[in-house]
Amino acid sequence: MLQIPSHITIFVYASDNCKGMKIKLISVGKTDREWLRAGLGLYLDRLRHYISLEFTEIPDIRNTAAMTRETVKAKEGELILKQIAPGDHVVLLDERGKEMTSAELAKLLEDRISLYSSNIVFVIGGPYGFSEAVYGRSNAKLSLSRMTFSHQMARVIFAEQLYRAFTIIRGEPYHHE
Amino acid sequence: MLQIPSHITIFVYASDNCKGMKIKLISVGKTDREWLRAGLGLYLDRLRHYISLEFTEIPDIRNTAAMTRETVKAKEGELILKQIAPGDHVVLLDERGKEMTSAELAKLLEDRISLYSSNIVFVIGGPYGFSEAVYGRSNAKLSLSRMTFSHQMARVIFAEQLYRAFTIIRGEPYHHE
Repeated sequence: MLQIPSHITIFVYASDNCKGMKIKLISVGKTDREWLRAGLGLYLDRLRHYISLEFTEIPDIRNTAAMTRETVKAKEGELILKQIAPGDHVVLLDERGKEMTSAELAKLLEDRISLYSSNIVFVIGGPYGFSEAVYGRSNAKLSLSRMTFSHQMARVIFAEQLYRAFTIIRGEPYHHE
Repeated sequence: MLQIPSHITIFVYASDNCKGMKIKLISVGKTDREWLRAGLGLYLDRLRHYISLEFTEIPDIRNTAAMTRETVKAKEGELILKQIAPGDHVVLLDERGKEMTSAELAKLLEDRISLYSSNIVFVIGGPYGFSEAVYGRSNAKLSLSRMTFSHQMARVIFAEQLYRAFTIIRGEPYHHE
């Protein structure tokens, strides 16, 4: 019998500016390097000044040596989908997604937050990408770059982009064009 | 009198596989956060197994409050150009540069290394970008993403891409398509 880890780590970053909706950031695999944990913590911490944020780490599937990539993705997909509620707006970070500038991402977030009350869920997959079931549940796909980033670094890079987006929305001086 | 810092930090990562040419990575501004130093150190250290690498940090220009952005860029540019030798092939990491996939970057590096003996210099600018003099000296421009990354994170992201490129050239299992 293959073991599927049942323990999911969730960190909730409650915000003073909570308007009912929140951003959920789901990533596959533990952030195991100390420097990446520090970088991720920095930006998640800054983000909580702007919005309620829930960060979920889905543990790596165990004993993957005997599995096909499709099986790994399917098992990861099941764990991802468990974290998604029916009304959530789901955005996958995916190489085949739409590339946008930081300003465009900020505009998209701003419009979404002002027009809808549903949560926004960003999902960063594992090294093999997403299962068909996860693609089927998604509402949009976003690409960070034409380059492939490690899935561990992608979460730090994206957390910084989210933070940057909120500084753009607020007109704060972090971002330079 | 405005002070221009004269101290330039250079780390040389000599390689066992040295073929005479080397990669120089020049960045503007000190990597001041510990987690970014750790990430950068990790990938620079891995890179030295593939190629001779020289990493140069150009210190931030002081007393910039009274300067225009153009003046800051011009002063940074002078310090950058001092690090570049006449035969060097200079690639700027620039938002207006060409985007490419990790595999395309690997191909470009592989071709360059096999065909030419000149050093390749990658330059990561400060928050305001490059002076016209630096653009004038450059041979190519490369963009990491349509998104704007912090110039401190860009050096870690790019060091990981260089490492990834060499694993692709060698057919090592780090990179997944």
